Amino acid sequence: MIEYSIGVELGANTLRAAAIDKSGTMLHKIACAARVEEGRDAVIDGIVEAITSLRGYYSTREMRGIGVASPGFIRMREGVIAGANRLPHLENIPLRDMLSDRLGAKVILENDGNAAALGERWAGAGRGTDDLVLLTIGAGIGGGIIAGGKIVRGSVGMAGEFGHISVVPNGNPCGCGNQGCLEKHASATAVGAMARMMHLGDNLTAKDIFELANQTTDPAEKARAIWRVMGEALGMALAQLVNTFNFPLYLIGGGVLPAWKYFAPHMMKVAKQRSFALRATGHETRVTQASLGDLAGLYGAAYLTWAEK
Amino acid sequence: MIEYSIGVELGANTLRAAAIDKSGTMLHKIACAARVEEGRDAVIDGIVEAITSLRGYYSTREMRGIGVASPGFIRMREGVIAGANRLPHLENIPLRDMLSDRLGAKVILENDGNAAALGERWAGAGRGTDDLVLLTIGAGIGGGIIAGGKIVRGSVGMAGEFGHISVVPNGNPCGCGNQGCLEKHASATAVGAMARMMHLGDNLTAKDIFELANQTTDPAEKARAIWRVMGEALGMALAQLVNTFNFPLYLIGGGVLPAWKYFAPHMMKVAKQRSFALRATGHETRVTQASLGDLAGLYGAAYLTWAEK
Repeated sequence: MIEYSIGVELGANTLRAAAIDKSGTMLHKIACAARVEEGRDAVIDGIVEAITSLRGYYSTREMRGIGVASPGFIRMREGVIAGANRLPHLENIPLRDMLSDRLGAKVILENDGNAAALGERWAGAGRGTDDLVLLTIGAGIGGGIIAGGKIVRGSVGMAGEFGHISVVPNGNPCGCGNQGCLEKHASATAVGAMARMMHLGDNLTAKDIFELANQTTDPAEKARAIWRVMGEALGMALAQLVNTFNFPLYLIGGGVLPAWKYFAPHMMKVAKQRSFALRATGHETRVTQASLGDLAGLYGAAYLTWAEK
Repeated sequence: MIEYSIGVELGANTLRAAAIDKSGTMLHKIACAARVEEGRDAVIDGIVEAITSLRGYYSTREMRGIGVASPGFIRMREGVIAGANRLPHLENIPLRDMLSDRLGAKVILENDGNAAALGERWAGAGRGTDDLVLLTIGAGIGGGIIAGGKIVRGSVGMAGEFGHISVVPNGNPCGCGNQGCLEKHASATAVGAMARMMHLGDNLTAKDIFELANQTTDPAEKARAIWRVMGEALGMALAQLVNTFNFPLYLIGGGVLPAWKYFAPHMMKVAKQRSFALRATGHETRVTQASLGDLAGLYGAAYLTWAEK
């Protein structure tokens, strides 16, 4: 029987958990509401119940431990989530130890972007590569860094939070207090905002704008212009990353991936222009699509207990 | 008798080598001409002779090995320096194995910026810190990254080459093919170029411009404006690094350090503005001066043989 681990991903409204064995096979996955409206105890009960039910299916196998991926800062020593303004119920309490006590198992907390990078490295497009960067582009932009096969965490797990790299010095204002953050110029949200500015519609999603770009008639050109601008902003950030890391692999993941053919050429053009390391290392530097979609964090969370030793 | 290692730093015109013991005490240092005009064999003979003479002084002690810091790309597996256009004689030859055979000792090659970061971590301002970034600001700008106590190398040792981070999208052209590189807006060379633009003089060094800033009369204001602009460019890069790494320590080293009081406040202001992680982590994130000066690379080179195991 192959040993397995449980990966959990905490979201503002949803809770996901999966049992994944050491070979990287996802055995079983659960997604449920986070029960936020019922208060803190219910939220924690929900996590415990999800994990317990998964364990019930595999009671004859050995469970290595539980990894929990969360947005925000993670204070590792204390096992506390801090500064994740989307999870008010779970912040600033000794969550790791509370879960560990109730479940009688080892629990590790990790930032969700870091977990996703680890997941791609273990079971996704980063397999076999010790040094990689993952950029996840959805409603917001996050990411993670793997160096020497290990997560680069930073003090509170916020290494790899590439969404707030400045790509346009006088660009759009950001809630973080900066302006011109990557997130404000290249996220799915930014793509929607650009569509509004282009009078394409008030509530278009990145998917809508991708579909518009696919058309052969009129608004297609505007939609493609949006993906070009998005790609160029991304290229600026990618160049900084290549100049900083000189890694062999950069993965782009997240909800915007379907539009890859519209933004990637522009991204690569700017990145090559602004990174001699990218030009100089040629085929030794790959920029490609992540492959685990929104499961990357679950894979990475499950892998945490094997990675840490 | 404490074991020692030998660190070597290769420059375009000079060769430096030092015997440093495991406690971090520099026992003996040699600096000499690189004998470039005499051709490749003489350059290599010079390295061998410098190391041999250092060993002669400490023949009763055990020598752990030899670390060689070099500009440019390093192909670790082959032990070859590549793409260091300042060292034409030493490129694309099996230098590591040539030196190792002639000296009968273990030899490790490393990029000079990486070696300097390792040196600061071992014996300088980074002592006791497992995660740090070093930015070295001299005629050019380089640097290095230490994560989990180890060098983050990248494919060819070019991780941490921060000089080519874009800080001004439409900024000064750079030899690397990009424009607005940090090196073109914040190096000692850039400071000199700004002084020319400000009609302060045609051949002023960063030191001259620091001394002008120290005056109480007229050109002082212009000189301080130059350090402000330099500091702001540096702050832009620093913000990117803090957003990327979330490390507890960022060290600034190199020839511009005497002007710290003129540029650092502006650097910090921009970095804080553009990095919520810097504001959010407060006193947990330190930005401070490197302490080993131009010896950092020698310390780091010597430490390579202890670091690698």
